[in-house]
Amino acid sequence: MKALSSIITLTTDFGTADGYAGAVKGRILAIARGVTLVDISHDIPPQGILQGAWCLRRAAPRFPPGTIHVAVVDPGVGSWRSALVIETTHHYFVGPDNGVLSLAAQDDGIVRVIEVSEKTRLWQKTASFDGLTLFAPVAAHLAASMPLEEIGAEAEDIVTLPEPQPVYTEGVVEGTVILFDRFGNAITNISRADLEGRAIDRVFLHTGLEAKLCDHYAQLAGTGRVGAVWNSDGRLELSLFEQSLKERLGLELGEPVRVILRRK
Amino acid sequence: MKALSSIITLTTDFGTADGYAGAVKGRILAIARGVTLVDISHDIPPQGILQGAWCLRRAAPRFPPGTIHVAVVDPGVGSWRSALVIETTHHYFVGPDNGVLSLAAQDDGIVRVIEVSEKTRLWQKTASFDGLTLFAPVAAHLAASMPLEEIGAEAEDIVTLPEPQPVYTEGVVEGTVILFDRFGNAITNISRADLEGRAIDRVFLHTGLEAKLCDHYAQLAGTGRVGAVWNSDGRLELSLFEQSLKERLGLELGEPVRVILRRK
Amino acid sequence: MKALSSIITLTTDFGTADGYAGAVKGRILAIARGVTLVDISHDIPPQGILQGAWCLRRAAPRFPPGTIHVAVVDPGVGSWRSALVIETTHHYFVGPDNGVLSLAAQDDGIVRVIEVSEKTRLWQKTASFDGLTLFAPVAAHLAASMPLEEIGAEAEDIVTLPEPQPVYTEGVVEGTVILFDRFGNAITNISRADLEGRAIDRVFLHTGLEAKLCDHYAQLAGTGRVGAVWNSDGRLELSLFEQSLKERLGLELGEPVRVILRRK
Repeated sequence: MKALSSIITLTTDFGTADGYAGAVKGRILAIARGVTLVDISHDIPPQGILQGAWCLRRAAPRFPPGTIHVAVVDPGVGSWRSALVIETTHHYFVGPDNGVLSLAAQDDGIVRVIEVSEKTRLWQKTASFDGLTLFAPVAAHLAASMPLEEIGAEAEDIVTLPEPQPVYTEGVVEGTVILFDRFGNAITNISRADLEGRAIDRVFLHTGLEAKLCDHYAQLAGTGRVGAVWNSDGRLELSLFEQSLKERLGLELGEPVRVILRRK
Repeated sequence: MKALSSIITLTTDFGTADGYAGAVKGRILAIARGVTLVDISHDIPPQGILQGAWCLRRAAPRFPPGTIHVAVVDPGVGSWRSALVIETTHHYFVGPDNGVLSLAAQDDGIVRVIEVSEKTRLWQKTASFDGLTLFAPVAAHLAASMPLEEIGAEAEDIVTLPEPQPVYTEGVVEGTVILFDRFGNAITNISRADLEGRAIDRVFLHTGLEAKLCDHYAQLAGTGRVGAVWNSDGRLELSLFEQSLKERLGLELGEPVRVILRRK
Repeated sequence: MKALSSIITLTTDFGTADGYAGAVKGRILAIARGVTLVDISHDIPPQGILQGAWCLRRAAPRFPPGTIHVAVVDPGVGSWRSALVIETTHHYFVGPDNGVLSLAAQDDGIVRVIEVSEKTRLWQKTASFDGLTLFAPVAAHLAASMPLEEIGAEAEDIVTLPEPQPVYTEGVVEGTVILFDRFGNAITNISRADLEGRAIDRVFLHTGLEAKLCDHYAQLAGTGRVGAVWNSDGRLELSLFEQSLKERLGLELGEPVRVILRRK
């Protein structure tokens, strides 16, 4: 039993200087004056669906149950792609059906997918700014307790983003770098949960460079070495102390990372 | 009859890293603890009065009636320029009299212009930071129901920004690019309303390149063509799918755009 | 007698695009749903402790008494450095013990320093994200009225940042540039309060270039001269009208600035 919360979060690639993000906030407050608006980010790189999806995956689960997360990174604005409200175990996600909602929604467990009907009064068709004319009113009316049934009909499927999986062979895990953050840390697709209790012995980049397994970044101070830590999302993360690993080593997405497990 | 709202929006060129924007927020909350602060932008380019004015024009009208919009892009800080509160049909605008408020205020219909008096206790003269010592307290006291008469005296005029108008001759509209957004879309001064119901036949850039009239950006996918859409502000906007038109074509502000209308 | 406020401000070097700042906000709201979250900045340069400390120094004192300021610029995340709650005359400061809190806390007057105990349920040890797993819950529980005694034990000292002091000899003050802001203004360590009522006669950069003492920036318009003003923090600040002094003159931190005082 989940009560609708009045928190609405925003994750977009709008920047703020053009006033698009401000317009969305104004529209939401004009419909649902009492909601608490929380900016997650307006600095997702333009059309950066994957980065937006990861940003939302990292932030969304920390919010109280019933939070409504609006994410608009939407190269297909105004086109055929569907507009979704996804009800998950704890939250609601509102945005285009292009994958930007998918990681966070799948992580929390999808309960129901609603495709916003063009027949609702919520969708005022425009060429360039569904954030304002579609997603803002949908989120605001959801916050104001409009039933999902009035917003649209249930849909079967959503567009998801490919997630490259690490390959496990006896005692070895072959993963890849799937994301960089602002600090130039390299996040891999190797999860602690996947190791089934076995400990890491050694970590190598594809160049043969060995990373030092650490409890925290500061253990790297003065060593000049690449470190490997389990981050707060439970993923293996590579970094340099107070420097950007990405820039120093010229790393790219997809870079292979090899983990040798300890013998049982 | 417009009830004073407790929403205060902020549009500045302060950035956030220096703490100027934070100081303004603190000052407002110290005076009017219960207001809802909404960041429109702190990323207006330094001294970018025109960009600030457009940002505010786009965002402000979406907010509920009674919202107080503070905009501080202010190369003349501390100097002779007046400090204004503009009451419009639905909103209040607070900022320097240098044009940054003018587009949004004119769009909404100016009801009354108040020049903040230096005699009020609201204006603590400083050399460099009227955002903190003048505009923040004016907005906060306005939110706390101080009558406009106590803030200052009525003024006749405000500084406005020039808005280049398109030239209409028989069947042809000659406009210009007046703004770029974060995505590199080029917004023109050609408005749907100005076409008096006539439809567009063809759209040309000054190079002779023809733009494809679209319902939405996604129709451009795979075509490599420049598209022209009516945007959510009712203006003709030129763009490339998932690319910056500005960068790809090296467009500049003032670039001519020619529209050929359909025969009646 | 200071009532705990429900304002929590955030100052970090997280950026927003990775979702770290959003995660911190969600965590705080999940614990203390009713707090007012205020972003001071998430754009402190990565590991920029000094810049973060100055940002907080400038913004924090403007907030109402009882505000809880969280600042996380933390190269030593996960390591031996302590986590602090500093009670000052009017506010609370929460963050790592690396100096980022020190300027603002010292300015307001330190009343009590609490070192967050690892034994509290507030500290869930992770390698990379104490902002989420430590500072957010500490601030949220503080807002929710947890007594400081339950958060940790009193500590003697905090890490402070060196503040280079100007040198006063008869009639001359030798200071330095200690900070630049977004506009390229150069802030010096020369304070009005330090001049003991004597007026400035002339101001020189180390190149021998003389700055014009102004009441406000706009007096520089059209002169092309470097100006010197007393800024809103009471410090001598050098600037060019509508240009970045830092970039135009290639100034660096530590640049000497010489002030000749008027004869008494």
